[in-house]
Amino acid sequence: MDKLLNDLINKNSSWAKIGNLPTSIPALSKKDPNLFGACIKTVNNETFRAGDFDATFSLQSISKVFSLLLALMDNSEEKVFANIGMEPTGELFDSISKLETFNSLTPSNPMVNPGAIATTSFIHGNSYKNKFNRLKNLIINMANNPSICIDKQVYDSEKETADKNRSIAYFLRNIKAIKGDVEKILEIYFKQCSLEVTCEDLASMGSMLARSSAKLSENTISNIQDKNIPGKYLRIIKTFMFTCGLYNESGNFAVRVGIPAKSGISGGIMAVVPGRMGIGVLSPPLNKKGNPLASIKLLEDLSEKLSLSVIQ
Amino acid sequence: MDKLLNDLINKNSSWAKIGNLPTSIPALSKKDPNLFGACIKTVNNETFRAGDFDATFSLQSISKVFSLLLALMDNSEEKVFANIGMEPTGELFDSISKLETFNSLTPSNPMVNPGAIATTSFIHGNSYKNKFNRLKNLIINMANNPSICIDKQVYDSEKETADKNRSIAYFLRNIKAIKGDVEKILEIYFKQCSLEVTCEDLASMGSMLARSSAKLSENTISNIQDKNIPGKYLRIIKTFMFTCGLYNESGNFAVRVGIPAKSGISGGIMAVVPGRMGIGVLSPPLNKKGNPLASIKLLEDLSEKLSLSVIQ
Amino acid sequence: MDKLLNDLINKNSSWAKIGNLPTSIPALSKKDPNLFGACIKTVNNETFRAGDFDATFSLQSISKVFSLLLALMDNSEEKVFANIGMEPTGELFDSISKLETFNSLTPSNPMVNPGAIATTSFIHGNSYKNKFNRLKNLIINMANNPSICIDKQVYDSEKETADKNRSIAYFLRNIKAIKGDVEKILEIYFKQCSLEVTCEDLASMGSMLARSSAKLSENTISNIQDKNIPGKYLRIIKTFMFTCGLYNESGNFAVRVGIPAKSGISGGIMAVVPGRMGIGVLSPPLNKKGNPLASIKLLEDLSEKLSLSVIQ
Amino acid sequence: MDKLLNDLINKNSSWAKIGNLPTSIPALSKKDPNLFGACIKTVNNETFRAGDFDATFSLQSISKVFSLLLALMDNSEEKVFANIGMEPTGELFDSISKLETFNSLTPSNPMVNPGAIATTSFIHGNSYKNKFNRLKNLIINMANNPSICIDKQVYDSEKETADKNRSIAYFLRNIKAIKGDVEKILEIYFKQCSLEVTCEDLASMGSMLARSSAKLSENTISNIQDKNIPGKYLRIIKTFMFTCGLYNESGNFAVRVGIPAKSGISGGIMAVVPGRMGIGVLSPPLNKKGNPLASIKLLEDLSEKLSLSVIQ
Repeated sequence: MDKLLNDLINKNSSWAKIGNLPTSIPALSKKDPNLFGACIKTVNNETFRAGDFDATFSLQSISKVFSLLLALMDNSEEKVFANIGMEPTGELFDSISKLETFNSLTPSNPMVNPGAIATTSFIHGNSYKNKFNRLKNLIINMANNPSICIDKQVYDSEKETADKNRSIAYFLRNIKAIKGDVEKILEIYFKQCSLEVTCEDLASMGSMLARSSAKLSENTISNIQDKNIPGKYLRIIKTFMFTCGLYNESGNFAVRVGIPAKSGISGGIMAVVPGRMGIGVLSPPLNKKGNPLASIKLLEDLSEKLSLSVIQ
Repeated sequence: MDKLLNDLINKNSSWAKIGNLPTSIPALSKKDPNLFGACIKTVNNETFRAGDFDATFSLQSISKVFSLLLALMDNSEEKVFANIGMEPTGELFDSISKLETFNSLTPSNPMVNPGAIATTSFIHGNSYKNKFNRLKNLIINMANNPSICIDKQVYDSEKETADKNRSIAYFLRNIKAIKGDVEKILEIYFKQCSLEVTCEDLASMGSMLARSSAKLSENTISNIQDKNIPGKYLRIIKTFMFTCGLYNESGNFAVRVGIPAKSGISGGIMAVVPGRMGIGVLSPPLNKKGNPLASIKLLEDLSEKLSLSVIQ
Repeated sequence: MDKLLNDLINKNSSWAKIGNLPTSIPALSKKDPNLFGACIKTVNNETFRAGDFDATFSLQSISKVFSLLLALMDNSEEKVFANIGMEPTGELFDSISKLETFNSLTPSNPMVNPGAIATTSFIHGNSYKNKFNRLKNLIINMANNPSICIDKQVYDSEKETADKNRSIAYFLRNIKAIKGDVEKILEIYFKQCSLEVTCEDLASMGSMLARSSAKLSENTISNIQDKNIPGKYLRIIKTFMFTCGLYNESGNFAVRVGIPAKSGISGGIMAVVPGRMGIGVLSPPLNKKGNPLASIKLLEDLSEKLSLSVIQ
Repeated sequence: MDKLLNDLINKNSSWAKIGNLPTSIPALSKKDPNLFGACIKTVNNETFRAGDFDATFSLQSISKVFSLLLALMDNSEEKVFANIGMEPTGELFDSISKLETFNSLTPSNPMVNPGAIATTSFIHGNSYKNKFNRLKNLIINMANNPSICIDKQVYDSEKETADKNRSIAYFLRNIKAIKGDVEKILEIYFKQCSLEVTCEDLASMGSMLARSSAKLSENTISNIQDKNIPGKYLRIIKTFMFTCGLYNESGNFAVRVGIPAKSGISGGIMAVVPGRMGIGVLSPPLNKKGNPLASIKLLEDLSEKLSLSVIQ
């Protein structure tokens, strides 16, 4: 498997040169565009690594998976989905029109920015700082990597260029889809996007999500009612990754690759093969839909070689 | 299993009384609202039946699955998806705005009306009549039921009240997404929607789609290049059923049930459990999203009892 | 004044070379792009002419003014505006999204294609042929030019490339905004667009609309209840020309020129200065909004020189 | 004329009881719903008063007229309209979708919230406080009423419930349609909306706008380059009032009344009859489009009695 992964990195390395770094967040546009790495962690804790598997990058939209998980654990499925929809949109991840056109009073789903900001706002905590720390600790816990912390430069850049997200968040409060201090909620959101991880971290977290039931380690997240992550939530999360995980390229990815996955604009993808493995991939240059081109190609090859598609 | 299916019909029979018959097609509004039936056919050809499993109803949108399959077999994946998108929309099945707003020149996906009308237009044949006959024969072949034919009353009603579909079809020709005689293409489309089937037919067809490779019987469909349905097409079809099969309730169904499925406004659902079984369910009253309420409830129970979800 | 008009034709003749003939209707793309003419007819029947004032061109969207007038005379204001809105859209003249997004069941206004097709459908007549003849006779009557007839080539081309209009019309019947035979209604609509006129015809018709009351000549239009055109209808028509007469450039034209006017994609504009004059201008090349560039420039100059703006 | 105005107040007083106070701004929902007043000031400085002509209310959207005027005087027509469009929208005054759907990077026009917030941001001043003071002084100057000041309760309420406007403003900064401190710009915007006036103030300001040229009194507004308001700007403003002054009821009002006018959700309308008079009307209950019902009725009667329509 190590060999397979190395072969696929080599085979697809030319794709890693095509595409562009995102310009919307200046700090991201200055990152090294030449990285290309991958890591697999099976549910039996075997690990396979290739290329720049240990290069760091910010979680960005991949963090939406974990804020959804914590929001579910803090609130229940019923409460979360009374306020956030479940439908893919086929539109840009930061579209605001959908909120207005249908006057739906709920964001479409937890994987687009409006839904993710709402999700973050549902996380419990006795202060905004505590809310973020609980989310960060969940991520540390699932990655089994206590050194995960914020990339300060990315965070500052994120915050500075966040007018579209601010627009979305105030809109959400206007339709009563979120409550509280908008700037503080956004701060958590920018922080979760700025957490620095490696492909190996993504693979570790993915392998936990790949299970049908999972247990967090003791004492790391305050006020978690149960260290056991209910299987139902794991399944919900994987389902959203499948239907909405790659923005308005999700349908295409489902057909070509067929694995629950979540991308971020820093070039990472966390893929989850139910019952089998978690996969972390990194290739910073993005295609026109805002997804890492080479990472998708590698996952497509890997899915075919190992018959990973959940739909056979 | 026969008992399980009977129990679920009984358990959910009160749901079968909630909802409304569609008014958009008058002939459908006159159908018996009290039917509730189900049939399972495994890939090993075991069959289980309950309730009104042998009541007839028109295929309606379920036919979109088969027009897509034949369009793929006649043209190749590349050609079909050069003209039709792969993304779920989160919008009404007959939305026309999406075609205009994004000026995309392609329908969003093959499971909404614009995409399905385009799909139908791609079917080969030396005449419009022949095109429809080839599609009908594919359906007969997959259901292994040569008696399947058009419900004339439904067809007439469909054709008479089809102004929204006409509007969509002329729009499609205007953006060059379809070519040819619009009225003739629509005629095929209305005919495929009007084909009368039973839950057992749906289960038979579903069990064929459930396989990773399938073979049509000899000599029934003219000019099929290969009687073997490529596994790739079977997988593509199941993927679209999963991401877009229940209109703008697809995301919700994926979370709650987790099985590729396609609904129709006559109250039928064909569900496909990869590698295991095809399922046909019927309950004419529809919920607000236009899907059969009791059928969804039954599938939700069945999925839970038998762990059918493709995402575990 | 003759000199002024000639001077303005000369001054703006370089603008008449900029822009493109419309490609949507092939017959129009073959017309002479070098024409530039203007004619003014005052309410006192003085006439001033310059350039290609006697070149012929098809009425196109200018005909929407007259179908609205006849629909009002045949039905009353209340009935027409129960089915058609009064609001400018800021969108393309042939937008269909607006009909769907707001589910308003009425077209936005009588100057965009959906509203104009509805308007045409409201014209009375004992046959579709008779409906068109009544409209044609109104136009002949107001232009005082019995030789006005259809440009057959334009009509054929119009009809052949009319899929967007067909899409709109079937949508309108679907939302019950129009009734009857869609193809027959569209035939009237294409015919009214294909009527051939000159700048002088436009000026004559405009000078009639410029009055606060007007009288049609005897016996030309069957079943007109009253040969007197109510002043209220004249005012309504001029108001729509002011707020919606130049597609999604109407607001800009109102600011720059300030006169009720209606443009057509064959390059004509009919402008109406209340109480003073009608103006016909022709310059086939269109700007990006689909309006004749040089004609707008000439009207802007003329409005400034003669203080024609209704808002001073 | 005094009698006419009194008669019209009486005639339409029953309309003043129909409709609702706005709930979006709580302070406005507590205002007296029973007020109904009107004042006319001719360009010759004759004044006519009736009903609650001296009751105070906040300017709200009527202030958009004055921020546009000052933005024009501070920047020139070219600069303002390079950043703001001129087209009516036919949509809600606070629609955000239009900004996104067409990706136009400019608000539609200066009379809808996005355009008005942009307009306010263009006002010059060496501080945000100074910017507002210059606008306030323009209004004081034109109303010839130095006592005009902010209704503090309305301002606080406005600011507190302003999430939709915040959403719009951050969106505008994101598309680079505005620059600077969003919260500070909004503060000016909320303040201008909260300025308290009477019908007589509106009539005074309207009579100044009614002129084809106007002169501000000395020394009241810092850094105005010229005390003379260019006639062109007066005409531009009146044109926007005509095409966009009553939200998505502007087209209807143009047909029924035919006068440039601007409404506000506190129930006021400032109408301007070019060359003749300014009119202020107040009736707090609003119709479904957010416009004061009785005020519109009174203006409709007045326009008919005195032939005020600019389009005859």
